[in-house]
Amino acid sequence: MSVTAPQGFDAAGVAAGLKSTGKPDVAVVVNRGPRKVGAAVFTSNRAKANPILWSQQVIADRTVEAIVLNSGGANCFTGAFGFQTTHLTAEKAAELLDVSAGDVLVCSTGLIGTGDEVFRGKVLDGVERGIASLSADGGQLAAEAIMTTDTVSKTAVLTRDGWTIGAMAKGAGMLAPGLATMLVVITTDADLEASEADAALRRATNVSFDRLDSDGCMSTNDQVTLLVSGASGIHPDLDDFTAALSELCGELAQKLQTDAEGASHDITIVVQHAATEEEAVEVGRSVARNNLFKAAIFGNDPNWGRVLAAIGTTAAQFDPYDVDVTMNGVRVCSAGGPDRPREDVDLTPRATRLEIDLKAGEATATILTNDLTHDYVHENSAYAS
Amino acid sequence: MSVTAPQGFDAAGVAAGLKSTGKPDVAVVVNRGPRKVGAAVFTSNRAKANPILWSQQVIADRTVEAIVLNSGGANCFTGAFGFQTTHLTAEKAAELLDVSAGDVLVCSTGLIGTGDEVFRGKVLDGVERGIASLSADGGQLAAEAIMTTDTVSKTAVLTRDGWTIGAMAKGAGMLAPGLATMLVVITTDADLEASEADAALRRATNVSFDRLDSDGCMSTNDQVTLLVSGASGIHPDLDDFTAALSELCGELAQKLQTDAEGASHDITIVVQHAATEEEAVEVGRSVARNNLFKAAIFGNDPNWGRVLAAIGTTAAQFDPYDVDVTMNGVRVCSAGGPDRPREDVDLTPRATRLEIDLKAGEATATILTNDLTHDYVHENSAYAS
Repeated sequence: MSVTAPQGFDAAGVAAGLKSTGKPDVAVVVNRGPRKVGAAVFTSNRAKANPILWSQQVIADRTVEAIVLNSGGANCFTGAFGFQTTHLTAEKAAELLDVSAGDVLVCSTGLIGTGDEVFRGKVLDGVERGIASLSADGGQLAAEAIMTTDTVSKTAVLTRDGWTIGAMAKGAGMLAPGLATMLVVITTDADLEASEADAALRRATNVSFDRLDSDGCMSTNDQVTLLVSGASGIHPDLDDFTAALSELCGELAQKLQTDAEGASHDITIVVQHAATEEEAVEVGRSVARNNLFKAAIFGNDPNWGRVLAAIGTTAAQFDPYDVDVTMNGVRVCSAGGPDRPREDVDLTPRATRLEIDLKAGEATATILTNDLTHDYVHENSAYAS
Repeated sequence: MSVTAPQGFDAAGVAAGLKSTGKPDVAVVVNRGPRKVGAAVFTSNRAKANPILWSQQVIADRTVEAIVLNSGGANCFTGAFGFQTTHLTAEKAAELLDVSAGDVLVCSTGLIGTGDEVFRGKVLDGVERGIASLSADGGQLAAEAIMTTDTVSKTAVLTRDGWTIGAMAKGAGMLAPGLATMLVVITTDADLEASEADAALRRATNVSFDRLDSDGCMSTNDQVTLLVSGASGIHPDLDDFTAALSELCGELAQKLQTDAEGASHDITIVVQHAATEEEAVEVGRSVARNNLFKAAIFGNDPNWGRVLAAIGTTAAQFDPYDVDVTMNGVRVCSAGGPDRPREDVDLTPRATRLEIDLKAGEATATILTNDLTHDYVHENSAYAS
């Protein structure tokens, strides 16, 4: 049931004509309380879309009543007019819900540059019709309304001792022309203080979505939101909640990775025995962003030399001549030289696992990425915004 | 005439059977003096090939008598045996030239992992025959002997008041499976101290080869070498020499860029009005390494949104909502929003110029790159080391 699985939330997903397909394209999620706590993490790209700029202002006081999300247009680089569209969106929702506009988050996804009067009219219409159809079963339709090039809706639900976390997500890094912004809405009926929600979300995001690195490109519109209703009446231990939230976000991140448009391999990079967790992440990312490595995987080539050449660009602690590299369970490189023959490795399955043992400590980190394919080049070179 | 244009240098290029084509694959360049000064800049990748490890030791005392370069095999990740091959190469050349092995640089380029007994035998044979055919006209053959996937040899000559600089170069970033290592040998009959040669080379490399960023991947075998004979008897002002060397290196870098395998556009990124030169370089690089931008150029799409999304990932000083973007002379974005219509931009020519005005200062930098094409994916995904 996605975001409506926990108690205290209503949602809706309606078609406002933003998508030419006529499919749902405006989602609304409302927190009925008793708590109205919100936390959010935004793209770190300094070029931020208008809805991001608005939502950053809304989240400042950690009070959120509702969130409106549209697909079919990113409203990015659309200037003051676009910002006003976002503001009007929040105001319309606030008016219909009888709350403050400053407590309504707004997210948009779609083509960069889309955001004119026609766009504005449809979004506002979608807000009206969405709010008119809010229900405690609306989570699935909401999850569909935020899809762009996703082939399936992505939802997750996790239940612990009397409290529940629900979520919907879309996108997987900018794998298609400005379309694959990552948007996530997480709801919970656990009872948390604003500072607890913020801390838990930052940690969970850090070990999940931040480690999903499909093509190294950071979208202008990414936003991960957590809404807390407290309706279960249960205040969990913060560590327990953070662990559960991290698990749920990790599950969503994998769903985004496996639906990455244009990809033919889902690559899980596990960096082992790093000196620190940060260094493990740095090393994993250097491989995840290396075009030569990713192209090799596309070609089913267990090219460990390229893995070494990639990690050799980092400042992480390790001896370049004493690293082990294992692909899909076969150690092809040990101590910086050849080990098992490459013919022993079967890279034809979509799921790909790369393990890099740095032998420098006890820290580990996992980075998710995909291969570099002809489809990727094709998707991203055809004329589009 | 390449490296033999300046006085005091002999060179040769011979075929030792390392290349299956039978083309020249071992080059030798000898400094006849009176000066025997050498300076070199090596790949910053911590995974360094055996010849790099050797050459770093040789260059320590700034005295260089000769340099041997082979194509047809990178001798990288080939362990102690591979290192010994490099050492034997230097010893063989030293014996025949009656100099010290510790004064002979060695470079290799080709497939990573190549470096067995067969390879060793051919390289040593090539050294013998190369030294036997040294001549003051050997520069062109030497330039051909270092080619791998290059379609043309790359040389340059620059003459000032009585002194000359000559050079040969190959490669353009790792644009083909481990083949496109960048090797450059520069010779001059200007008279320079070792410290002057080192300073001039570092500056010239910094503003030329370091700003050639074809696919963001740093090779394991890159080396840029400067040999000083002093045979002209003229000791130029260091600033004048550095400016001339920088100009020559810039010319070579452009030649490497335009011969980048698999590319269909040569993209010159000019970052203007940055707060500092370092920030201009950082911004240029963020675009040069952005797959979505490079794929858009492949599709002849003047996608300025992706340029903004790319530079937005840097910490350079600028207002993301007040940047101008000009493509092939047409300003498509001003102050962070649309300007001239995209239809006004013709991106069909191979030569592509992108100007980014940060409006934050007076510094400028130019980064050279290429587009992301199907050929790149194909070249780098077919089974190879």
